[in-house]
Amino acid sequence: MSPLKRSYTIIGTGAVGGFYGSCLQRAGFEVHFLVHNDYEHVRQHGLVIESKEGDFTLPNVYAYRDVQEIPTTDVIVIALKATQNHLLAHLLPPLVKDDSVILVLQNGLGVEEEIAQMVGNKNIIGGLCFLCSNKIGPGHIRHIDYKAITLAKYAEGYQACGTAEQMVHLSDDFQEANIPIILFEDLWIARWKKLVWNIPYNGLSVVLNATTQELMANINSRNLVEQLMKEVLFGAQTPNRSIPKIFIQEMLDHTEKMEPYRTSMKIDYDEHRPMEVEAILGNPLRSARDRGIELPQVSMLYQELKFLNARNTQDRRK
Amino acid sequence: MSPLKRSYTIIGTGAVGGFYGSCLQRAGFEVHFLVHNDYEHVRQHGLVIESKEGDFTLPNVYAYRDVQEIPTTDVIVIALKATQNHLLAHLLPPLVKDDSVILVLQNGLGVEEEIAQMVGNKNIIGGLCFLCSNKIGPGHIRHIDYKAITLAKYAEGYQACGTAEQMVHLSDDFQEANIPIILFEDLWIARWKKLVWNIPYNGLSVVLNATTQELMANINSRNLVEQLMKEVLFGAQTPNRSIPKIFIQEMLDHTEKMEPYRTSMKIDYDEHRPMEVEAILGNPLRSARDRGIELPQVSMLYQELKFLNARNTQDRRK
Repeated sequence: MSPLKRSYTIIGTGAVGGFYGSCLQRAGFEVHFLVHNDYEHVRQHGLVIESKEGDFTLPNVYAYRDVQEIPTTDVIVIALKATQNHLLAHLLPPLVKDDSVILVLQNGLGVEEEIAQMVGNKNIIGGLCFLCSNKIGPGHIRHIDYKAITLAKYAEGYQACGTAEQMVHLSDDFQEANIPIILFEDLWIARWKKLVWNIPYNGLSVVLNATTQELMANINSRNLVEQLMKEVLFGAQTPNRSIPKIFIQEMLDHTEKMEPYRTSMKIDYDEHRPMEVEAILGNPLRSARDRGIELPQVSMLYQELKFLNARNTQDRRK
Repeated sequence: MSPLKRSYTIIGTGAVGGFYGSCLQRAGFEVHFLVHNDYEHVRQHGLVIESKEGDFTLPNVYAYRDVQEIPTTDVIVIALKATQNHLLAHLLPPLVKDDSVILVLQNGLGVEEEIAQMVGNKNIIGGLCFLCSNKIGPGHIRHIDYKAITLAKYAEGYQACGTAEQMVHLSDDFQEANIPIILFEDLWIARWKKLVWNIPYNGLSVVLNATTQELMANINSRNLVEQLMKEVLFGAQTPNRSIPKIFIQEMLDHTEKMEPYRTSMKIDYDEHRPMEVEAILGNPLRSARDRGIELPQVSMLYQELKFLNARNTQDRRK
């Protein structure tokens, strides 16, 4: 490891954090992993990545159970499920210094704002992962497809703030680790664009117990996907920013060509894990409502998912 | 049987038609039953009604497979599932005379209009059954609870047309058969009032795989039920008619006090039978749209149900 290279802390060593952290370590970066359930296993055996681009193993990784033991690093990567974000108020303060860069690799809306209020840090970068991977065992991650990340800097109130220097640094590091990076000047639009896909497909895949392919093959569900996308576009609008309508058609066409896909929310549901309903639907709905915009069909999807989530995680405790 | 009494033809000898027809026959009315799958069984063994008010058997009933063989009767009762209404164009013309009374015992909206266009008859009465019964075997019906019927006469365009003489006659007959009858002056409002209950509870019970009790116990599904009811009220509005808002609270309170209830649509879904999606949601939506009223959440529920209905009845054919 080179002392000239930036160092990383990965909070959440699952399908996302475990994968990207391992890629960085393999490329020679110093990486510290906060590990929860798999701690003992990862200390002894390290991390294993299966990938169609080539499997690899990191027999020795810096693994921690307690943030207090993690040394100061240049970058802190938040790769928890958004359902675990209540832990951040406890996890972040010991790690974050004034010049730390915080990279948020999560779906949904609103988490950068919460973090900014929590630690008062000015270097928060949102990252949108186009990644298909699963954790299939302790310290064992299967990378299935894609891995690009779109980066955009957070500024108060999600104002567009251009390409920050920290984004370029992160981009250099990730590209050195063979991760394609797209730099984007407007985190608000980047997040809402991802929501245009995530809200209908994640939500309906759970409510209708369907793959993306099934949703596209039936005229009623396909129309419903499109209507939901229109509402999300409407919710994204601010006085000076909007997503062009053509984006909907691009997403529909793109999804139609994809392999049948079980969404991340559907995987969580099937595994009886809490779903990211608040990050992906609740926060965007509240954000729109605060600006006087009602999204009735997204709101209905939210309520359906809240009902299913409550019953599904309750069953587990039986 | 008394020659002074009105005679009845029952089209559809299931949980609804089999039950009411049997009650009428037991009370001394001449009743002719059109029977489909159970024809041979009913000819040989008649009809069996199980009821907490007392079981009874009618060993001999007039059963028919072909409408051409049914003699002319005073009243023709349509008790098919609304999903079978495409059969009416074939079934009704041989049975209906100018002075026939047609009683439609179905859920949903629009069937009286279709029948009026089909046979040009002026004596069409809509009947809304508050009945909990199931067909549990060939010619074997279990009456669980309730049995009242609300009657209202159809006039072109669902104009309110007061209490017609034929309604009073039907009321006399059914009450003689121990069926409580409510006479209502406005079929439009009667049908939409029933939709205020049927749309949210039937629809959500299928989409969320839930009983009425589960829907009422969770704050999100309960709020969603209420929102859907508000949309139905909005859809019912005409320049001179509307359902008072207090009706929503009455329905919510009433349902909260009910025993956990599996709706008729849920039973159809569980049995892989086609659901009455068009009668209960599609026709009201189109009626509202024709009057320039959009119901986004009812529309979403409709599309979800159409998707589930297609997959559910397709599975059956596998």
